[in-house]
Amino acid sequence: MTIRVAIAGARGRMGSTAAAAITEAPDMVFAGALDYKYDGWYINGGTLIEQPSGVRVYTSIAELAEAEKPDVLLDLTDPEAVFPNAQKAIALGIRPVIGTSGLTLEEIDHLKIMSEQKGLSCILAPNFSIGAVLMMKFAAQAAHYLGDVEIIEMHHDRKLDAPSGTAVKTADMISDVRTPHLQGHPDEQVNAYGARGADVQGMKIHSVRLPGLLAHQQVLLGGEGELLTIRHDSFDRKSFMPGVLLAVRESVSHHQFVNGLEQLI
Amino acid sequence: MTIRVAIAGARGRMGSTAAAAITEAPDMVFAGALDYKYDGWYINGGTLIEQPSGVRVYTSIAELAEAEKPDVLLDLTDPEAVFPNAQKAIALGIRPVIGTSGLTLEEIDHLKIMSEQKGLSCILAPNFSIGAVLMMKFAAQAAHYLGDVEIIEMHHDRKLDAPSGTAVKTADMISDVRTPHLQGHPDEQVNAYGARGADVQGMKIHSVRLPGLLAHQQVLLGGEGELLTIRHDSFDRKSFMPGVLLAVRESVSHHQFVNGLEQLI
Amino acid sequence: MTIRVAIAGARGRMGSTAAAAITEAPDMVFAGALDYKYDGWYINGGTLIEQPSGVRVYTSIAELAEAEKPDVLLDLTDPEAVFPNAQKAIALGIRPVIGTSGLTLEEIDHLKIMSEQKGLSCILAPNFSIGAVLMMKFAAQAAHYLGDVEIIEMHHDRKLDAPSGTAVKTADMISDVRTPHLQGHPDEQVNAYGARGADVQGMKIHSVRLPGLLAHQQVLLGGEGELLTIRHDSFDRKSFMPGVLLAVRESVSHHQFVNGLEQLI
Amino acid sequence: MTIRVAIAGARGRMGSTAAAAITEAPDMVFAGALDYKYDGWYINGGTLIEQPSGVRVYTSIAELAEAEKPDVLLDLTDPEAVFPNAQKAIALGIRPVIGTSGLTLEEIDHLKIMSEQKGLSCILAPNFSIGAVLMMKFAAQAAHYLGDVEIIEMHHDRKLDAPSGTAVKTADMISDVRTPHLQGHPDEQVNAYGARGADVQGMKIHSVRLPGLLAHQQVLLGGEGELLTIRHDSFDRKSFMPGVLLAVRESVSHHQFVNGLEQLI
Repeated sequence: MTIRVAIAGARGRMGSTAAAAITEAPDMVFAGALDYKYDGWYINGGTLIEQPSGVRVYTSIAELAEAEKPDVLLDLTDPEAVFPNAQKAIALGIRPVIGTSGLTLEEIDHLKIMSEQKGLSCILAPNFSIGAVLMMKFAAQAAHYLGDVEIIEMHHDRKLDAPSGTAVKTADMISDVRTPHLQGHPDEQVNAYGARGADVQGMKIHSVRLPGLLAHQQVLLGGEGELLTIRHDSFDRKSFMPGVLLAVRESVSHHQFVNGLEQLI
Repeated sequence: MTIRVAIAGARGRMGSTAAAAITEAPDMVFAGALDYKYDGWYINGGTLIEQPSGVRVYTSIAELAEAEKPDVLLDLTDPEAVFPNAQKAIALGIRPVIGTSGLTLEEIDHLKIMSEQKGLSCILAPNFSIGAVLMMKFAAQAAHYLGDVEIIEMHHDRKLDAPSGTAVKTADMISDVRTPHLQGHPDEQVNAYGARGADVQGMKIHSVRLPGLLAHQQVLLGGEGELLTIRHDSFDRKSFMPGVLLAVRESVSHHQFVNGLEQLI
Repeated sequence: MTIRVAIAGARGRMGSTAAAAITEAPDMVFAGALDYKYDGWYINGGTLIEQPSGVRVYTSIAELAEAEKPDVLLDLTDPEAVFPNAQKAIALGIRPVIGTSGLTLEEIDHLKIMSEQKGLSCILAPNFSIGAVLMMKFAAQAAHYLGDVEIIEMHHDRKLDAPSGTAVKTADMISDVRTPHLQGHPDEQVNAYGARGADVQGMKIHSVRLPGLLAHQQVLLGGEGELLTIRHDSFDRKSFMPGVLLAVRESVSHHQFVNGLEQLI
Repeated sequence: MTIRVAIAGARGRMGSTAAAAITEAPDMVFAGALDYKYDGWYINGGTLIEQPSGVRVYTSIAELAEAEKPDVLLDLTDPEAVFPNAQKAIALGIRPVIGTSGLTLEEIDHLKIMSEQKGLSCILAPNFSIGAVLMMKFAAQAAHYLGDVEIIEMHHDRKLDAPSGTAVKTADMISDVRTPHLQGHPDEQVNAYGARGADVQGMKIHSVRLPGLLAHQQVLLGGEGELLTIRHDSFDRKSFMPGVLLAVRESVSHHQFVNGLEQLI
């Protein structure tokens, strides 16, 4: 069976990479583009054109649904657009696969209820990197045995916020499973403000920002006489594509709300 | 319930560390030492003495069994001693926990059959490092998604053999689960013999030997635009003790042959 | 003073990046492009156009010299083109800055003689990465104290040759200064062909090739109880631009042959 | 010529390792031990004994000087003892080699003046690790080209203070040579207190503390599209011995105050 995929945000950097990946996947079709403008234009090989050749752009999801019969709406826009898009999609029987962070807890709950009432999957995957998800899962599993954990995340110096969302999520996932305890020396003496990093769920997170860096994270788990390090390096947004394709494929065989790619791996 | 543990090899470096760890464990008792000499002497706080104070040394496992009623025989000797020790232990109803590599496949099969006929656990754990076992398990799980793998293991330059047993075991565990495929460029041109490492199960293993190093391994898993690295550093033999205690504890609740600590984690 | 720079190979990936860097540099002018075709066309903002706007393309270095009066010829073509270009440049009083490996020893000697007879600098810089050059220099300095060295170089799996030129050059630079001695255990037993890497100048080089990797090298120097690691990661060809600009600037204040960016740092 | 070395603190962990190293060095003699007690006892193979065999212990440096004629006093005690010891040593014509941090700036100035008035070397080397000194020197050299720097230092969780002295010293050495500038994004938004580490001389220092770790530091230097990392791992106090022997040897050929092993490398 071929999965018909509509994409919201297909003109963006992430969206155009995803459009190419879906076009190349043998079991998928890029069936239509949802946009806030350019209604009736076409996307052809990554370029927006006026001639009717390629994949049509719609500004109305209802029209897109009727004309193109998509199974899935892959939404790579921003938190403001994502929530109304997903609501309408579910109502129209289209499975949302949402690749954006920033939804409020209320919005997430609302989509969960809609998804489960309708028996239609809705996948929330703010991080499509399978490698990053594996890092987080492994770290959580390892913390069962090696309960002292610190996280070093390293990004280019154009990144505005610290710590990264992935680092905080990693700490949360570890915190869910490890036995709570105090780390470090109780009488620790910090002579320069901030040297020991940020405390998140009892773990320390250190955020490095340098030109030249891309996106890297390592989780360090220490035990008596040993250290386990799980490190993920993202060099290119192509690394997200296997996760995008996985989420799209899984969406048609699930019938409920799925919060995080880690639920599918 | 307290687990009564006899130790073979208690005078060795690993054995004396294990004896101390078992003595400190609240749910275990160091019940007797099996040795090839010093019958009737005692081990007291790590020292061998003639006075009857501490844990008694036996050269006969039958006498040890009768006098001390051990539940488990932790065997940290060498491959030659381990096999007869384990046979006798099983016959006497004592569960072997074997921390030595080097048993032949025939010997392993033999112990497996004895263990299962008797309904008594026998645990073979050539690597007691929980951290190393986690590294291997995670690498095998990750290879399902990121199938291109290379292994770099690094040890002090007094290590004679290369590649390390852990590196080969890691490649074997990955090979058991990943889809076979060719790695690297098919037209690769190697201009200096050995540059691309050893091929083990289609993966490359690189062995570094330098003074200063202890025991380190990293598994690199590459995908389009990303790299996942799982690294384990062993700094001290104390790092094996959680694995020793885990194996001893698990041995009393299992009733079959267990090949590898990874079966228990 | 403004340095007038002609570029050979300005339409290539490296060349176009260099053209942009030179155009942006406040003390340089991109004065002309040397090519084997497109004579009389123009390069304008990285694009080749027929209209006379931007930097003119010449197929004759003599014409380029007469019309544009360049101080320097930055040559980013291939070994075949580089040698005749450099000979003609020196004869015309233009300083070659050559960013290609692959010249023969005879060709290098010939350029050296021409350069010194003319009292005009000629800079051969097969690796423009200042970071990589620093890594090599530091490794060589450190080997004076920590003489046991292994090199791990890691590249994407589209790279055909192993070991990398930088790794071999690093071993050569270390070999020039360290006291010769045998590394590793003399009775080492290698159980899988290639595990210990390639022997280059008595050092081991290990070449890792994985999808996802870009260009990375680490030099490990071990001593009793310690390890010094010098690592360089290249993520983008922009990292070569500071080295290109440095070489161009240095070329106008030198009057002899310079073999390697490391002579200028 | 054989260098006669007296040691203060020879019963400590560092001191006994140093005593063994000096005893083994072909060009040195362990000539006497300075202590605050055990006058007239002897140190023999690392053990304190009452019988007159081995190296004699003195509580008076004057008596030690007269009886044993040491060329050098290697002082591995604490800041309180070091200063009076060094003053007396210089007055007696013995060259102090001081392996302790914690002297005040006034005390350092005082020793500098005494040393230079007397024309007798006095070496202050709070860090005897040649590898660590190389890391600091290389980082400072590299910062000339790659001016954005962050430091990650990692130690076992029994270490009380953060950041480490070596990390702060590294930042100081870099700061002495690099062009001052702001690092990181000016509009950085830190959502968890401390995530971005401590600011020392405009660089960020991150201190990791975990069981299992020993003593590690990496200096990361970023540039457009590249990263240079200089890392030092200390696994054992034996790693300090080459630095101890170097300082002792250099002390007899110098005639002034030397502040830091980096002045001798």
